[in-house]
Amino acid sequence: MTDRLLMGPGPSNPYPDAVAAFGRPMLGHMDPEFIGIMDETMDRLRQVFRTTNPLTLPVSGTGSAGMEACFVNLVECGDTVIVGANGVFGDRMCEVARRCGAEVVRIEEEWGRALDPQRLLDAQAQHPHARLVAVVHAETSTGVRNEVAPLRALQDTDTLFVLDTVTSLAGIPLEVDGWGVDAVYSGTQKCLSVAPGLSPVSFSPRAVERITSRTVPVQSWYLDLGLIANYVAGASRVYHHTAPVSMVYSLHAALGVVLEEGLENVWARHQRVGDLLQSQLPELGFTLLAEEGHRLPDLTTAWIPEGLDDAGVRRTLLTEYGIEVAGGLGAFAGKAWRIGCMGHTARERSVVALMGALREILGA
Amino acid sequence: MTDRLLMGPGPSNPYPDAVAAFGRPMLGHMDPEFIGIMDETMDRLRQVFRTTNPLTLPVSGTGSAGMEACFVNLVECGDTVIVGANGVFGDRMCEVARRCGAEVVRIEEEWGRALDPQRLLDAQAQHPHARLVAVVHAETSTGVRNEVAPLRALQDTDTLFVLDTVTSLAGIPLEVDGWGVDAVYSGTQKCLSVAPGLSPVSFSPRAVERITSRTVPVQSWYLDLGLIANYVAGASRVYHHTAPVSMVYSLHAALGVVLEEGLENVWARHQRVGDLLQSQLPELGFTLLAEEGHRLPDLTTAWIPEGLDDAGVRRTLLTEYGIEVAGGLGAFAGKAWRIGCMGHTARERSVVALMGALREILGA
Repeated sequence: MTDRLLMGPGPSNPYPDAVAAFGRPMLGHMDPEFIGIMDETMDRLRQVFRTTNPLTLPVSGTGSAGMEACFVNLVECGDTVIVGANGVFGDRMCEVARRCGAEVVRIEEEWGRALDPQRLLDAQAQHPHARLVAVVHAETSTGVRNEVAPLRALQDTDTLFVLDTVTSLAGIPLEVDGWGVDAVYSGTQKCLSVAPGLSPVSFSPRAVERITSRTVPVQSWYLDLGLIANYVAGASRVYHHTAPVSMVYSLHAALGVVLEEGLENVWARHQRVGDLLQSQLPELGFTLLAEEGHRLPDLTTAWIPEGLDDAGVRRTLLTEYGIEVAGGLGAFAGKAWRIGCMGHTARERSVVALMGALREILGA
Repeated sequence: MTDRLLMGPGPSNPYPDAVAAFGRPMLGHMDPEFIGIMDETMDRLRQVFRTTNPLTLPVSGTGSAGMEACFVNLVECGDTVIVGANGVFGDRMCEVARRCGAEVVRIEEEWGRALDPQRLLDAQAQHPHARLVAVVHAETSTGVRNEVAPLRALQDTDTLFVLDTVTSLAGIPLEVDGWGVDAVYSGTQKCLSVAPGLSPVSFSPRAVERITSRTVPVQSWYLDLGLIANYVAGASRVYHHTAPVSMVYSLHAALGVVLEEGLENVWARHQRVGDLLQSQLPELGFTLLAEEGHRLPDLTTAWIPEGLDDAGVRRTLLTEYGIEVAGGLGAFAGKAWRIGCMGHTARERSVVALMGALREILGA
C-alpha cells in the first residue's frame, strides 16, 4: 500500500476521523440508529452550508451527480437557463442543462478570470422568464473564485440561483441563505476531506416549490428529489434506493471535525495555507495564474517555469516524494499546475513538504 | 456504536476484508496505482459476472443508478421495451423506462410467482422491433428467482436482453455470457458484502454498438456510458467524474474474498444456508411464500404465523438480539418477512442465531 500527500484538485487526504468512521459496524439503511446518524448528518450539512433549508441531504453519487440533480429537478424541457462559463465546470453545467432540454444562455469569461456577477444579472434582465442562473463558486479548473453574493438580487425575480460549491464548501466563506442561493451542490472529496462518493445538496423553499409544481416527472428516477426527500428525510422514510451507509458514516464524522474546529476557523486555515503557498511559489519561478483578488486559497493555479518538464517533475514528485499535484486542463495542459490545499491537507506542513521537494527537484 | 447481524434484504454484513480495505490510504483517482486497482476490480467483476465484456465496471451510485444507466443508455424516446413485472424491482424498471420516453409492454405475474420466460419471448415476437426485454433475476421484494437462461434466444433477434442481478450476483448461479445477457447491473451491498454505494454493470459488444449508434445524446450526463468508459477504462482515462476511491478499494477486496473462496463454492454456500433456513422456518409456524422451485436461497420470504406481532417481534429481534430482518413490501406489508442470508452473512451460524432468538421470543 502506498500513501500520498494529496495536493491535487481532489481527493484530498481525508480527516483521520473520516477514515476511522468507515470501521463503524454496518447498519441497515432503515435501522433507527442509522436514521439518527443520517438526521445528524443533514443537520451538520445545514451548518456548513449556512442554511435552514429542510431539503439538505447527501445525494448518493459524486459531485457531478449533485450537479445533475439540480438541473434535472429544476429544469423542464424548453426552459431557458443562464450559465456562467469560465472553466470546465461551467461548461459541464451547460452540457447537463442541454441534456435536460434547456435553452442555454452562456455567459462566458476567459479562463483564469472571474465572472462579473452584473453580467449574469443583466442576462436575467434580458431573459426575465429564465428558470435559473447557475454559476460555479470555485472553479477547480482555473483556481478562480467567482463573486456570487450579488446574485442575491435574483431573489426579487422568478429566476432561481444555482451554485456549484464543490471546491468551496467548508473551505472558503459560503452563505447559502445569506446570498439567497436556491440550489447548491458540493462533493465530499475536497474541503470536507472525505472520500469521493457523496454530493451534499440543499434546496430553498422556493426551489422545492418549483420542483413540486413540475408538469412532467423528473427525467431521472435515481435523482428525483421528491422521491429522495421522502426516503432520506420524510416522516415515514419511504424506500427509494439504499443509502451508502459507510460513506454517510464518514461524511458524518468529517462534518463533526469541521464543526468542532469551527467553520470560520476552518475557512481561516484554508486562507492562511493558500496565502503561504501563493507567496512561495513565485520564488521557484511559478507565476500565479488566477486573476488577483479572485484567487482560491484551497486550489492554486500557477504557470510553470519555462523549461520545466511538466509531466516529468509531477511524476518525480509522486514517486519519489509521495506528493500529488495536478496538471492543467484544456488550454492549460502542459503549461500550468493545479495545487490543492483542501480539508485535512490544508496545513502549513503540506506547503513546507511540497516546496522542499520542489527545491530539491529543481535544484533551486 | 451498535453492531447487528444483518439478515434483511441488504446491506448484508460486509466481508471483514472489505471493511479493512476502507483503511487503505487515499490515492488520487488518476494515480497509476489507483488505476491499477480499478483495472483489477473490473477484471474481478468480469469473473463474477462470468463475462468477457470489455465494458464491465462499477457505476458510481447504488444499484438503482445501475438500473438507470442501462435504460438511459440503451433506450431512446419512443422505443418499445418489454419488462417482466413480478415485484417492486420489475415495477421500478417500468417507471425508469417510462421516464426515458419508452413505450412499456408490461408482462405481469403475481407477486411470489416466477415469470414464465416464454411469455417474454412471445411478447418479443409480437413486438419484434422492441429495443430490449428486461427482467429481474432475483426479486428482492418477493424472494423469487426468475428463470432467465431461456432468454438467450433473444440473441437471434435485434432485441437486447437486460438483467437485474442486484440480489443474485455472487450469490446464485449467473452466467452473463452463457445466457446471452446484453446489459446487467447489480449492487455491492447484497451478496458481494460491501457497503452500498456502487453498482457493477456489464454491457455486451452488441449493447455497446447500440449505445454508440444512438441518434440523441444520453439524457443523463452522469450516467453516460460513453463518457464513463473513456474515464474508467479508456486508454487515456479522460476525466469525467471522480471515482469513489474508498468504495472501489472495498469492492476490490470483497471480490478478492469471493474469488479466493471460489465463485461456485460461494454459490453452494448460499444455497446450503438458504436451504437450512427454509427447512427450519416452518417449525416456528412460518409458511414459505415464494413459489416452490423458484425460491432464492439468499433472500427468503415467508408468511408470518397468525397472531405474530410483525413490527413488535422485529423490533425485539433488533434491539434485544441485534438481528435485523425485514417486513414485507406492498401487499405483503404486515404479513410476510424477508430474511437475507447474503455474502458474509450467508453462514449456518446466522441461521442458528436467528432461529434461537425467534424460539426465545415466541416461546416455542
